[in-house]
Amino acid sequence: MSDLVITSPANQRLKDLVALRRRRNREGAGLTLLEGLEETSLALDSGVRPIALFHCPELMLDEQAGADLVERARDVGAEVVELGRVAFEKVAYREGPDGILAKVPTPGLALDEVDLPDNALVLLCEGVEKPGNLGAMLRTADAAGVALVIAADPVTDWGNPNVIRSSKGTVFSVPVASASTDEVWTWLAERGVEIVATTPDTDIEHTDAILTGPVAVAVGSEKYGLTDAALARAHHKVRIPMVGRANSLNVATSAAIVVYEAVRQRRQG
Amino acid sequence: MSDLVITSPANQRLKDLVALRRRRNREGAGLTLLEGLEETSLALDSGVRPIALFHCPELMLDEQAGADLVERARDVGAEVVELGRVAFEKVAYREGPDGILAKVPTPGLALDEVDLPDNALVLLCEGVEKPGNLGAMLRTADAAGVALVIAADPVTDWGNPNVIRSSKGTVFSVPVASASTDEVWTWLAERGVEIVATTPDTDIEHTDAILTGPVAVAVGSEKYGLTDAALARAHHKVRIPMVGRANSLNVATSAAIVVYEAVRQRRQG
Repeated sequence: MSDLVITSPANQRLKDLVALRRRRNREGAGLTLLEGLEETSLALDSGVRPIALFHCPELMLDEQAGADLVERARDVGAEVVELGRVAFEKVAYREGPDGILAKVPTPGLALDEVDLPDNALVLLCEGVEKPGNLGAMLRTADAAGVALVIAADPVTDWGNPNVIRSSKGTVFSVPVASASTDEVWTWLAERGVEIVATTPDTDIEHTDAILTGPVAVAVGSEKYGLTDAALARAHHKVRIPMVGRANSLNVATSAAIVVYEAVRQRRQG
Repeated sequence: MSDLVITSPANQRLKDLVALRRRRNREGAGLTLLEGLEETSLALDSGVRPIALFHCPELMLDEQAGADLVERARDVGAEVVELGRVAFEKVAYREGPDGILAKVPTPGLALDEVDLPDNALVLLCEGVEKPGNLGAMLRTADAAGVALVIAADPVTDWGNPNVIRSSKGTVFSVPVASASTDEVWTWLAERGVEIVATTPDTDIEHTDAILTGPVAVAVGSEKYGLTDAALARAHHKVRIPMVGRANSLNVATSAAIVVYEAVRQRRQG
């Protein structure tokens, strides 16, 4: 059922795959790596067409589910390559690989490709650096029905395999874009989307802001929060009430709390 | 300013510290490791009395802040030990150590030591395994004013250095306990605390439950959620609405969304 079988870990095809772990190589090729049966299944559900699908039956927990996924990938044009266990473990990048790895187009849209729905709920991450936090925010965005997640300054690499992994594949199910803070602000303003900045430096709690219209919930970097430039141009500033000693929520937690407050208001409004 | 200076990484005192990375050794001694200036400062604010404070001025970003912290620890009875850089790096367990490491009593209370306030908001984690998720939930609990975080089945090691690290020290500022599901349920029932289980298997959304009384928000393991036994005995079941393709929020994110819904209701109620 495979177009090709590779058992030698020294095969050049595998070296080319491993090379995609480097950002420069990903950007040159416009391709990245997606690992895992559930993650790849979600990407296929979302319309992703893998270039190639590498599978290792020996590593699969559920061989039938794996075989079904392989056929789904083939049906949308993926080359199918079977790998021996040693070969697969050379290209796998997570612990406990499950025998599925896809070479896919890097996720991400240019802002001018995005078509926002009415009353869009947008999540804007400025300067967020940790792949784990970006991934967690994508899972929240998927669950909450966020229309677009934008990363601003520095231009985030949505194709980073660690972002893809920690997003559980939702980086392919949620529209994502990446641009400079200037471009993002202009683009949102042109579409009438108001920026709601989360910051400790305001007395307005997030539950007191009206989040039912077209709004972008903005969160800043792990260390410094939103930049002064971003805060100065926000339409609203809101804080999450904190009573503890540490006074610092994780950025992905903060994003989830404000996004789900918006969901609450929209469902009850 | 130190009681002792150690430069050799082979020193037995350092080996004893490294040994505390193993659970068995931590449980035998009732001690664990706490690293970082901010984290140790938060623990001191919370009344923790370190047994010993190890510091390395060469690694500190802010030597004055480090020196102040050393004196605070000494004032509450800690032995103060200065380490050379090589020696410190041998005992440090995080990337980019900042020159502060404390040997402290393991956090955690027995349930019968806990004195719950009226209308307590409790967070109950059943079977949550990843230290990063436990740490994130502790940060949320600190910020939200949660009265107690309980880990049930398996009995969680709150002294795990990875939990301590990812909690940013809040494992020392929030009361934490650990017990079997049976014990926890009995204890909560005796105190009139109602269990609010988060699960996809209900039509009631978390925003429709009344969370202003004494409630324990219960979340389950990363893979399986709450056990059937826990769900059967919960007073209320609530779901977080999810509209995406993946339909799975991270457990720490779920906990934060429900806990902050309780905060919202309490502040407006």
